[in-house]
Amino acid sequence: MDRRQFLHSSIAGAAVVAAGASPLAVTACGSAADKGKKALGQLNISFQEGTAPGKSLAEKFDFMEKLGVTGFEPGGKGLGDRVQEIKDALSGRNIKVSAICAGFDGFILAEDPAVKEAFDTSMRRIIDAAGELGSTGVIMVPAFNRQVPCKPHNQETRDYLCAQLHELGEYAKAHGTTVILEPLNRKEAFYMRLVADAAAIARDADSDGVKCMGDFWHMQEEVSDYGAFWSAGKYLQHVHIASRGRRKTPTEDGELDNYVDGFRALKEMGYDKYVSFECGCVGDKNVVLPAAVQLLRDQWEQA
Amino acid sequence: MDRRQFLHSSIAGAAVVAAGASPLAVTACGSAADKGKKALGQLNISFQEGTAPGKSLAEKFDFMEKLGVTGFEPGGKGLGDRVQEIKDALSGRNIKVSAICAGFDGFILAEDPAVKEAFDTSMRRIIDAAGELGSTGVIMVPAFNRQVPCKPHNQETRDYLCAQLHELGEYAKAHGTTVILEPLNRKEAFYMRLVADAAAIARDADSDGVKCMGDFWHMQEEVSDYGAFWSAGKYLQHVHIASRGRRKTPTEDGELDNYVDGFRALKEMGYDKYVSFECGCVGDKNVVLPAAVQLLRDQWEQA
Repeated sequence: MDRRQFLHSSIAGAAVVAAGASPLAVTACGSAADKGKKALGQLNISFQEGTAPGKSLAEKFDFMEKLGVTGFEPGGKGLGDRVQEIKDALSGRNIKVSAICAGFDGFILAEDPAVKEAFDTSMRRIIDAAGELGSTGVIMVPAFNRQVPCKPHNQETRDYLCAQLHELGEYAKAHGTTVILEPLNRKEAFYMRLVADAAAIARDADSDGVKCMGDFWHMQEEVSDYGAFWSAGKYLQHVHIASRGRRKTPTEDGELDNYVDGFRALKEMGYDKYVSFECGCVGDKNVVLPAAVQLLRDQWEQA
Repeated sequence: MDRRQFLHSSIAGAAVVAAGASPLAVTACGSAADKGKKALGQLNISFQEGTAPGKSLAEKFDFMEKLGVTGFEPGGKGLGDRVQEIKDALSGRNIKVSAICAGFDGFILAEDPAVKEAFDTSMRRIIDAAGELGSTGVIMVPAFNRQVPCKPHNQETRDYLCAQLHELGEYAKAHGTTVILEPLNRKEAFYMRLVADAAAIARDADSDGVKCMGDFWHMQEEVSDYGAFWSAGKYLQHVHIASRGRRKTPTEDGELDNYVDGFRALKEMGYDKYVSFECGCVGDKNVVLPAAVQLLRDQWEQA
C-alpha cells in the first residue's frame, strides 16, 4: 500500500473487508475507490413480500429463486408472530431476509408521549424479530409529513433524535441487527430527504446499530445518485429501487429507469448488502420482473 | 463514445467542457469520472484579502503571485466603492477576483420585512460590483443561528427561499455573475449544513445564476468529503479551505489537514473554479502560507 492508497483508505475510514455476511459487518467502503483496484461491490437483489407473484411464501420464493433473487424484505407489522413461518419457508433456499420494512406504531419525533411510547414498544418488538431472522436492519422514517404534532425542525430536536437513535441502535446491535434511516422525498417527509443527511444523523447517533439507506425513487431529491451513495459512506445498509417515473417496476418507465450512476458508486464503495424492489407493477409480473432483474444486472455490469 | 461512457455522461448531465473562464461557464462535471479518462480539474488557489501579509493590495498581490496564487476573494462590504481600486491593483497581474465573501446586511429568511429589504438592497449592490469585477459569484448564507426572527424550517420556507433565490440568481446572471450558497456547520447555522442540501436548493431555484460551494472546515458536518463534492454536481462554484482542527492555515493542524479525498472528487468532476483560503494563521505567514500552498499542490497531485 503506497502513500496515496493509504490516504484514500484512512479518509474513507472503513477500509476493512467484511469477512462474512453478518448484518453488522463493516462494508469495505472506500477501499475500492482507489483507481485501478477491482471494485468489491456485488448486486444482491431483494424483493418485498408483495413483489413476486404467488399466493404463498413458497410460491413467491420459487419465483424469486428462478430469477436469482437472494433477498426477502418483509413488512414489520406483526413480524413477531411470523418468525417461524418465515424461517420455515426460507429453509433450504438461497434466500435470506434482507431489511424489514417499517411496520411500527407511532413515530420517534412525536410530541405526544403516548405516541412516542407506542413507537418505542412496537419498534423494539420488530427489532427482536429482525434479529431472530438475521435481518440487515429495520427501516424507519423519523416523521412523515402526516404525522403531527411533531417536534420542531431545529438543533435541539436533532440532538434528541440522535440520543434516541443511540439507544435504539444499541438495542438493535445487542439483537444482532440494526435500524436503518430512510430519507424520503418532500411529498412524504420534509424532515429527512437526503442520503447525506441520514448518514450524518447515523454518525451522530454514535452506535454501530444505526445505519442509513438510499431509495432510487426518493432520490429524486438528490442532485447526484453517485454523490448521494458516496455521502452515505460506511453507514449505507440498504437500497430500494423502483421505476423512476411512476414508482412502478424497473423497465416500466423506459429511458428514465437508469441506475448506472448510483450503481457505479455502490460498486466502487464495495457495497455488499441488498438492492430491494419497493414498487408497483403495471404489466404482467411474470414478464416484467424477469426483465427488471435483467435490466439491473446489465446496468450493474455497465456501471 | 461507447454506450457506457454515454450513460455516465448523460446521467452526470453536464458533460460539456467549458470553453472559457466565464463565471457562468458550465463545469465539465461528470465526464472525467469515466475511469481511464484524464481528470479535467485544476487547482486554482485563491486568498481572501486578509490572508496574505502586506499593507496594501499591491504588497499582497506581489506575495500571492510569487506563490502562484491566481484568485483573490474580497469581502462584499463596501465593494461598490472599491471596484476601480481592485481593478487597478489587479491590472497586469495573473490574479483574478474569485468569489466575493458575503458582506450584505440583513438575511434572506428574515421574518421582519425591513431586514429582508436590507438584504435585497445590499446584496444586489454587491452583485453589481461582483459583475463588474468578473467574480465567480457572491457567497451567501440563508440564515445564521444568531439571525432571528427567522422563518420556520419547513417546506413552505424552502419554497419561498427557492423563489427568492430564483429572482436573485436571474439578477446575478444578468450581471455576469452568480450567488453561491454556503453550507455552514451547526454552530454557525443549523439551517443549511450539507453540500447536498445547498445543491438541491440551487437546483430548485431554477436559475443558472444560483450555485453552491463546499468549505472544508464546515464539511466536518459531512460523512464523506468525496461524496459531498460529487453531491454538488454542476452547481459547485467555489471551495473554501482551512486547517481541519482549529480553522487555521492548512499545515497548522498537522495530520488533520488532509484534503485528498475531497480533491479527488474535484479532479474527477473537472472542477475548474477556485479553492480559496478562509482561515486564521498561528505562525509566521511568510513561512506558513508557502508551506500551505505546497501541501495543497502535493495533495492535489496525490488525489
